[in-house]
Amino acid sequence: MEFAKGHGTENGFVIIEDFNASNILEPQRVAALCDRRAGIGGDGLLRVVRAGALVEAGELAELSAGIAADDWFMDYRNADGSVAEMCGNGTRVFAHWLRSRGLVDSDEFVVGTRAGAKPVRVSSFNETDAEVTVEMGPVEVTGLSTAVMGGVKFAGLAVDVGNPHLAAVIPGLTPEDLGAMEFAAPQFDGEFFPQGVNVEVLTPLVDGATHMRVFERGVGETRSCGTGTVATAVAALADAAQHTGTVQVRVSGGQVEVEIREDGTSLTGPSKIVAVGQTSL
Amino acid sequence: MEFAKGHGTENGFVIIEDFNASNILEPQRVAALCDRRAGIGGDGLLRVVRAGALVEAGELAELSAGIAADDWFMDYRNADGSVAEMCGNGTRVFAHWLRSRGLVDSDEFVVGTRAGAKPVRVSSFNETDAEVTVEMGPVEVTGLSTAVMGGVKFAGLAVDVGNPHLAAVIPGLTPEDLGAMEFAAPQFDGEFFPQGVNVEVLTPLVDGATHMRVFERGVGETRSCGTGTVATAVAALADAAQHTGTVQVRVSGGQVEVEIREDGTSLTGPSKIVAVGQTSL
Repeated sequence: MEFAKGHGTENGFVIIEDFNASNILEPQRVAALCDRRAGIGGDGLLRVVRAGALVEAGELAELSAGIAADDWFMDYRNADGSVAEMCGNGTRVFAHWLRSRGLVDSDEFVVGTRAGAKPVRVSSFNETDAEVTVEMGPVEVTGLSTAVMGGVKFAGLAVDVGNPHLAAVIPGLTPEDLGAMEFAAPQFDGEFFPQGVNVEVLTPLVDGATHMRVFERGVGETRSCGTGTVATAVAALADAAQHTGTVQVRVSGGQVEVEIREDGTSLTGPSKIVAVGQTSL
Repeated sequence: MEFAKGHGTENGFVIIEDFNASNILEPQRVAALCDRRAGIGGDGLLRVVRAGALVEAGELAELSAGIAADDWFMDYRNADGSVAEMCGNGTRVFAHWLRSRGLVDSDEFVVGTRAGAKPVRVSSFNETDAEVTVEMGPVEVTGLSTAVMGGVKFAGLAVDVGNPHLAAVIPGLTPEDLGAMEFAAPQFDGEFFPQGVNVEVLTPLVDGATHMRVFERGVGETRSCGTGTVATAVAALADAAQHTGTVQVRVSGGQVEVEIREDGTSLTGPSKIVAVGQTSL
């Protein structure tokens, strides 16, 4: 089977083309492909499939608003083989693959996901590198809450980006302090976040930029989290008494730009395709 | 650049062919290739090169005894880009690659390494799977020592397999107990092991088999460690009042067979090639 491997700010993915949804990817096979030691290795898998074919194959109930049958659909799988609705960093890599391999012929198009239609814009690309903007939709600030990590208690903004986040600006925190912080599984308010929560810790906004680290629900600390960077931008702006704006978010795996508008949000960042090949898995 | 990816009991490697040593692999490039998120991903890199070419390129001082100029040489690099002398699991994958890709035409041959000539025997192979025996050379029991891990103190056999090991049989330990053990960086006798030590914890020999977990010096817990399985076999046999014999060693990543003879040791186990491709890194 042909595969490719790519990453967005070091959130890494295995890419599999299966235009007609003829190759059912069992969870066990996805897990084998994503295994970092015995497989290709990745945080998840991006299956490139026509939206209509996925419906015909019975793998998707129906086409959401804004997704046409011949649109490309990002069938996203977690590394354990389970289905996930959406992945911001993965969408950049997915769009890069479509554009650089000639599967689309314009810079602006829609990517179908289980979380709905995601408009994307590829502002530059070649075979290996691209810069892509993904519309991440509206976000909702749902309140304030606290968490404890490594014995330190902090307060943050609860932000719903389709999944729950607690983004906490720590007053006076420098990027060096952030890097040295002991990052462990956070204790949070289980009544406020009954489904668990992704926790972002960030430095106050300076010259439009913030540094953040993220502890992903069910995963642990990661080098990047797309929805987490959006929650981070909302919290950094709020801390600076702003409601909308553009924020450079520096994560362990690189840098992305998040725009918070009245009517929605967008995430802009790099994508890299590092390998293509054939696998026996 | 062409690459392959393989593993031996889930000890994973990037394979790069460079027969004439014309492609100097800078440490930074090796690290980029081995990076699990932004690269191909591996515990190390196996550069396939002619021994004589490596000497001519000035990358190897001289050919050790038993290595001819046209023998294949495993130029092993750690994931951080540094040069390592030898890797038992890597040698199986290296031999598998040579045999299955027609770079050698017999089942028994010598692999050159920075730790000297390693005779290997490929007992079965196809494109993706092989069973390979590697002569690991003599080992030396250097004494008894103790370590503390997760608050538990235990005694073990100090075994020199070219690198230092402390292999500890825990009386009455079951495979389930071993799996549940809290594995953390061990405290050891720094005077006895001035260069640090790899620590193996193992169950007593039952029907010729032992289960082990390993904490590799400078790395952490790994799913397999070739020299560690040899030290494990020595300790398991000694605990059963045997000096020589054959031991099945079950590790997190699978199973290998270790033979301890008066005149040397050998390690037999599987190799898998899971992917081949081209990388832009």
